[in-house]
Amino acid sequence: MRGPSLAAAAAIDGDRLQDRLARFACIGAIPGNGVNRAAFSAEDIRARELLVGYAVARGWDIACDPIGNLFLRRGGLEPQAPAVLTGSHMDSQPRGGRFDGIYGVLAGVEVLEALDAAGIRTRRPIEVVAWSNEEGGRFAPCTMGSMVHAGARSLDEVLDIRDAQGVRLADALSDTLAATRAAAPAVIHRPFGLAPAAYVEAHIEQGPVLETAGCPIGVVTGIQGMQWFEIEVEGESAHAGTAPLSTRRDALREALSMIAALQQLAADPQDVTRFTVGRLRVSPDSPNSVPGHVLFTVDLRHPDADTLARLGDAVEPTCRAQARHCAVRVRRTLADAPVRFAAHVADTVERSARALGLPSLRLPSGATHDALYMASLCPTGMVFVPCERGISHNEAEHADPADLTAGARVLAATLVELAER
Amino acid sequence: MRGPSLAAAAAIDGDRLQDRLARFACIGAIPGNGVNRAAFSAEDIRARELLVGYAVARGWDIACDPIGNLFLRRGGLEPQAPAVLTGSHMDSQPRGGRFDGIYGVLAGVEVLEALDAAGIRTRRPIEVVAWSNEEGGRFAPCTMGSMVHAGARSLDEVLDIRDAQGVRLADALSDTLAATRAAAPAVIHRPFGLAPAAYVEAHIEQGPVLETAGCPIGVVTGIQGMQWFEIEVEGESAHAGTAPLSTRRDALREALSMIAALQQLAADPQDVTRFTVGRLRVSPDSPNSVPGHVLFTVDLRHPDADTLARLGDAVEPTCRAQARHCAVRVRRTLADAPVRFAAHVADTVERSARALGLPSLRLPSGATHDALYMASLCPTGMVFVPCERGISHNEAEHADPADLTAGARVLAATLVELAER
Repeated sequence: MRGPSLAAAAAIDGDRLQDRLARFACIGAIPGNGVNRAAFSAEDIRARELLVGYAVARGWDIACDPIGNLFLRRGGLEPQAPAVLTGSHMDSQPRGGRFDGIYGVLAGVEVLEALDAAGIRTRRPIEVVAWSNEEGGRFAPCTMGSMVHAGARSLDEVLDIRDAQGVRLADALSDTLAATRAAAPAVIHRPFGLAPAAYVEAHIEQGPVLETAGCPIGVVTGIQGMQWFEIEVEGESAHAGTAPLSTRRDALREALSMIAALQQLAADPQDVTRFTVGRLRVSPDSPNSVPGHVLFTVDLRHPDADTLARLGDAVEPTCRAQARHCAVRVRRTLADAPVRFAAHVADTVERSARALGLPSLRLPSGATHDALYMASLCPTGMVFVPCERGISHNEAEHADPADLTAGARVLAATLVELAER
Repeated sequence: MRGPSLAAAAAIDGDRLQDRLARFACIGAIPGNGVNRAAFSAEDIRARELLVGYAVARGWDIACDPIGNLFLRRGGLEPQAPAVLTGSHMDSQPRGGRFDGIYGVLAGVEVLEALDAAGIRTRRPIEVVAWSNEEGGRFAPCTMGSMVHAGARSLDEVLDIRDAQGVRLADALSDTLAATRAAAPAVIHRPFGLAPAAYVEAHIEQGPVLETAGCPIGVVTGIQGMQWFEIEVEGESAHAGTAPLSTRRDALREALSMIAALQQLAADPQDVTRFTVGRLRVSPDSPNSVPGHVLFTVDLRHPDADTLARLGDAVEPTCRAQARHCAVRVRRTLADAPVRFAAHVADTVERSARALGLPSLRLPSGATHDALYMASLCPTGMVFVPCERGISHNEAEHADPADLTAGARVLAATLVELAER
């Protein structure tokens, strides 16, 4: 481990990091200590304004690509060399916590601050990115910013997506970009697909492994695979008082049979398979009308590619087998195979933790992250820190300040090491 | 059957009735030939303006009570005698049809027009009422206007009810009353609970009995009983990728078990019991968040009082038995016992049909109507006409013009007969 890597880690200011986390937690604050900061919302815009303010204050360059991914750049001794990139996202779940995503962005900013404070000059530039729309709660699918940046989907394919209120993504994005230009007039246009030398993302674990092991640092080896489905059941609305049950085409009744069958399909004694119906919407949504239409989502995950493919391919036939009086339409809206991260990035994270005297543990990520798409573009890794009871996507999400500081120190050492390669 | 009763029936103008039904179908028109005219909405206000316009044109008095029930009054030879009342409602389901409710109001208006056209003077005044908020789709419970008018609930008890957007009923009602006063400055304030001499409501059947029997007129003998429930399941939101299924407190999963158990409870080989879950709302409503909260409704109906009471009392214990990791709260929001209508009103409807050469059939009502509450205030009855395939609470709702005219003729003869008693 080089001297500058350790010096950068030592210059991390845990109090400043806590202070900034608290400031961002006020943007979109909701009862119960949580945040609701939907992608491309007024709250997202305020978060972007606060973030670019840090760059303006320090004289770091600011760049932005056409989907609003924001890059803060601290130059290197070789300004033309591909940068080492860190970061995460600033949007949240509708009832999300104050650490998910924003921790990785602010830990990255804290590394740049530490480098400035310690007067360290790295060979490669180091950049912090805030990816657009990682959560997908307002505009599905999730991890959209990194997905489009890495070329897995084109910008044109997502512009017409609408939120539940009918707002078009293109319009919300355009407002967001205009606000960013207003806050940082010197913002540099960046094209998609610029490959950095490496990408390292810091994040709370969002699961129980590190806390249970009493270990502050997770060295992430990869991300489990995930498939998303949108399933629509079309029956016929009718009067709740007059229509005999035998004559009904009740879309909710059949949707519930489909979900019960899918739950059986995904049943797993090892408790590794993740199966979630997170959205279910009934129309006409009136207590005395038989539902004529139901839309529900399925989120299916597994670390083994073959198991995931087998389960995912069974979703549509399982639903069809339950459709007796209604029509069913199954769309697979996302299919990400499991990903393994580059060995040398994980090794660097592990060596950094060891050099700083911090216990670490190798583990796969249960959640999807922007690192998934970056892994297709460059050597990629992640640093996890524990979160209380593994609770995330919930207002009660909490992480220990000491663990958050430890994670930022490991991130600092790792980035400086990689910036010298 | 008296001469004036038959003369009134003969003066019914089926074309004018069709024309007015078409005009009202434009207010809140939705694709598929349906209407969405929620109680106390801008569309409801436009419907009220159109209705009072008919009264202004003919010089009928207009009265309104504090919940917005609108009365059009054609005077009688004995102006102080209690009036004979007819009518129904003008609000609709979110995806409702163009006949449910509005037919009864416009058939009543057509009777007043026929009496004017034929120059018939009745002993008692005849009034047409448009009850507020019969559907309850925006502000639950349903049949609210007649319920409050008849004193089954006080106005104060409903003023704080909010719609899904958080709008308070008191505010929406206040806007509606102001618009009515603007459209009809001479509107007379009417107190609640004024008992008419009789109440007769015309309505499409909303079920398949008359069509199957090939019979244009239904003589309604009563209304089946109904109970409504709101059931809230409180679990804990969590990350769909990281939380092992064994650790989840998934509110949707447990709500689905409850609904499956309730479906078993309500299973009925005779197909008489009506059981409907018409609303189910998931929070946080995000594809990659485990649902932390679910609200669903139950609409339960049966013509037998004891059976309905037994089933209704079993709803809460049935839900509790399925609550394993989540908390459940069950509220019974409505409990209407079955009602039998006055024999002399049904007899008058039947005699009117016979005198007009129209086949009729006695039947109970599967749907609840404002007639339920009026039956507690005065002798009450209903006239049903067939609707296609029994489809209602659906854009595809349809009724034959000849049947609608026949129903208005029977209503005219019935009202004139009752106005002479």
